[in-house]
Amino acid sequence: MKTSLRSQVEPFRAMEVVAKAQTAISAGNDVIMMCVGQPASPAPAPALEAARKALEVGKIGYTNATGIAPLRKRLSQYYQDKYAVNISPERIIITTGSSAGFILSFLALFDPGDRIAIPAPGYPAYRNILRSLSLEPVELRTTARDKWVLSAETLENAHNQSPLAGVLIANPNNPNGTMMPPDRFQEVFETAQNLKMQFVSDEIYHGLSYTHPEVSALQLSDDTIVINSFSKYFCMTGWRIGWMIIPENLIETVSRLQQNAFICAPEISQIAALAALEGMDELELVKQGYARNRDLVLTRLRDLGFTNVHPIDGAFYAYADVSHLTDNSMELSKRLLDEINVALTPGADFDTIEGHKWMRFSFAGDHDQIADGFNRIEAWINKENRL
Amino acid sequence: MKTSLRSQVEPFRAMEVVAKAQTAISAGNDVIMMCVGQPASPAPAPALEAARKALEVGKIGYTNATGIAPLRKRLSQYYQDKYAVNISPERIIITTGSSAGFILSFLALFDPGDRIAIPAPGYPAYRNILRSLSLEPVELRTTARDKWVLSAETLENAHNQSPLAGVLIANPNNPNGTMMPPDRFQEVFETAQNLKMQFVSDEIYHGLSYTHPEVSALQLSDDTIVINSFSKYFCMTGWRIGWMIIPENLIETVSRLQQNAFICAPEISQIAALAALEGMDELELVKQGYARNRDLVLTRLRDLGFTNVHPIDGAFYAYADVSHLTDNSMELSKRLLDEINVALTPGADFDTIEGHKWMRFSFAGDHDQIADGFNRIEAWINKENRL
Repeated sequence: MKTSLRSQVEPFRAMEVVAKAQTAISAGNDVIMMCVGQPASPAPAPALEAARKALEVGKIGYTNATGIAPLRKRLSQYYQDKYAVNISPERIIITTGSSAGFILSFLALFDPGDRIAIPAPGYPAYRNILRSLSLEPVELRTTARDKWVLSAETLENAHNQSPLAGVLIANPNNPNGTMMPPDRFQEVFETAQNLKMQFVSDEIYHGLSYTHPEVSALQLSDDTIVINSFSKYFCMTGWRIGWMIIPENLIETVSRLQQNAFICAPEISQIAALAALEGMDELELVKQGYARNRDLVLTRLRDLGFTNVHPIDGAFYAYADVSHLTDNSMELSKRLLDEINVALTPGADFDTIEGHKWMRFSFAGDHDQIADGFNRIEAWINKENRL
Repeated sequence: MKTSLRSQVEPFRAMEVVAKAQTAISAGNDVIMMCVGQPASPAPAPALEAARKALEVGKIGYTNATGIAPLRKRLSQYYQDKYAVNISPERIIITTGSSAGFILSFLALFDPGDRIAIPAPGYPAYRNILRSLSLEPVELRTTARDKWVLSAETLENAHNQSPLAGVLIANPNNPNGTMMPPDRFQEVFETAQNLKMQFVSDEIYHGLSYTHPEVSALQLSDDTIVINSFSKYFCMTGWRIGWMIIPENLIETVSRLQQNAFICAPEISQIAALAALEGMDELELVKQGYARNRDLVLTRLRDLGFTNVHPIDGAFYAYADVSHLTDNSMELSKRLLDEINVALTPGADFDTIEGHKWMRFSFAGDHDQIADGFNRIEAWINKENRL
């Protein structure tokens, strides 16, 4: 058959590393997975228990396209508690992970050819989903001077060069965990509003911040789309369950798109997610574990000579300059997996221009495993230096 | 915010009827759900048991983008057993229901503006997903003369008027359960190949045929995409799990799209689906129940004066002309839900031109409930006739 032009997107290399690592694991190798943003902890106990109960009845069926009512209501309460904002349940759409949230947002807001600003380095699926939907991602490079977050000036300059229909910001960001200070975030948001850009806020790493509290775009305005998920803070990656908050005037459009394109999110995952919101004590302990991992990673990176690391304000990633070891981080990633069974994600995923000098280290995994991973990397570097 | 043009698709009315019906159920009404293609039976016992076991371990994580290896391997065996075709596991992509399979297929094969033929009446999401992806659905009307299935002649004529990039056929079809005889299917397939149209075969209702066995497009050629799901025959709607078979040369493209657009299908659903393939004895009993429901529906429709019904060769739907009762089946659907708590789907979902005269009756539900539903409809018609 003939492939379309729109489908010729780049791979999400993190997923390719996962595939290779899992092949190695199946072959009996002791692989340390620092390649993927996946918590080592399972879903919180109430979530697992709720899923078990649902299996006793056994009927896992279609739900309303927008999600089960108790989950939408409970999330409305969550926004009241966490951000002190009043979001009616009707504005909350339960999605099949944040992935479906992106597809729904992009389809609802943008027509073919529209230009949408995204930060670089950033999550590669933004770029690739946008392209496959015939939209044009415009990568705005962040700089050390701006502490690796987007500035209002950069956004405005890009818009003046050629108009932008929208902007998508993740805060904390992937692959580096950087967070905008609240005033910076507000400035960027207001610039976007003034320039009539539609603002999509990816808040999937909310709940995981170490230096200052997160600001939701909803605290600034109702006229925005917020995307979130149970994958990260709630430790539910493989359940494929997330949500989006949309303005009133988008409810009908997004509901219709969801009905047609996805039907609904998996019911068992919706049931588990509702219960996960009662497992926050457990999740706060998990977060303390990430904070411990973060200290370890910062120390070990420094020890091992990785001196140029983006500020890890949140999430569970370190994005480190590896140019003293290689100018081809993809090749380095392959070698580390093949030679010492350590799986890392090359920067090319997140930054098509500078990524070859960078590597992402995920510290969402087990503390001792991460420690072991760095020991292996240390031994490998020492051996390389001797050669 | 401003909605895009591409997002202004029609609702999937069946899902709107579900939403209304569930509101009525929550309010304590005794609603009979004949509106949605959802089996009354739960997933087979081995599937539920496998999911339970996965919850004991608790780690439900990301899988390879293309799906877990044992499920792809087991499906390869399934094709050998059921259709005597040899499909390598690499060509099998596990998807988040058939919905994700459609999105992946359309993105992989077609560029904006491409015209894709679909039958009318047919599944409305084809039309609406195609539109939202900036593709042009071309509805080809089936006729009583052709026993309500597509003819090679109709396809060729449409292509001659304005070239078609592809054609999508469901066999058995939704909303009517019609099936092409094998020679007719082959004729349409070969016509598509000769005219260089890409052929997508929706085989979601395979396993559910009453009059003659199903033919898979894979029995005719490897140069096609087949979409299937665990929702219908396997009774796993709410698990959102399906698969697609693609030709060798599409593996890289579809894998990359899946990595970016969906990450992977829900792991717990993949685990349950693998076990569901060992629950076929149970599923054959479920199918016998549908056959019994089908007899009931055919009898009751005739009794009640619905004389124009498409041939129900497969699936679990009756598509009946209701023009002796109304020329607005949407209005009729609303009244039946409001007045007698019977939920049916109006034909407008499936046919934008003639649908207002037709109604879909799903018989996937419980036998006694369906019998009760027809009793209520009978009483309602008698009362209407007296007014």
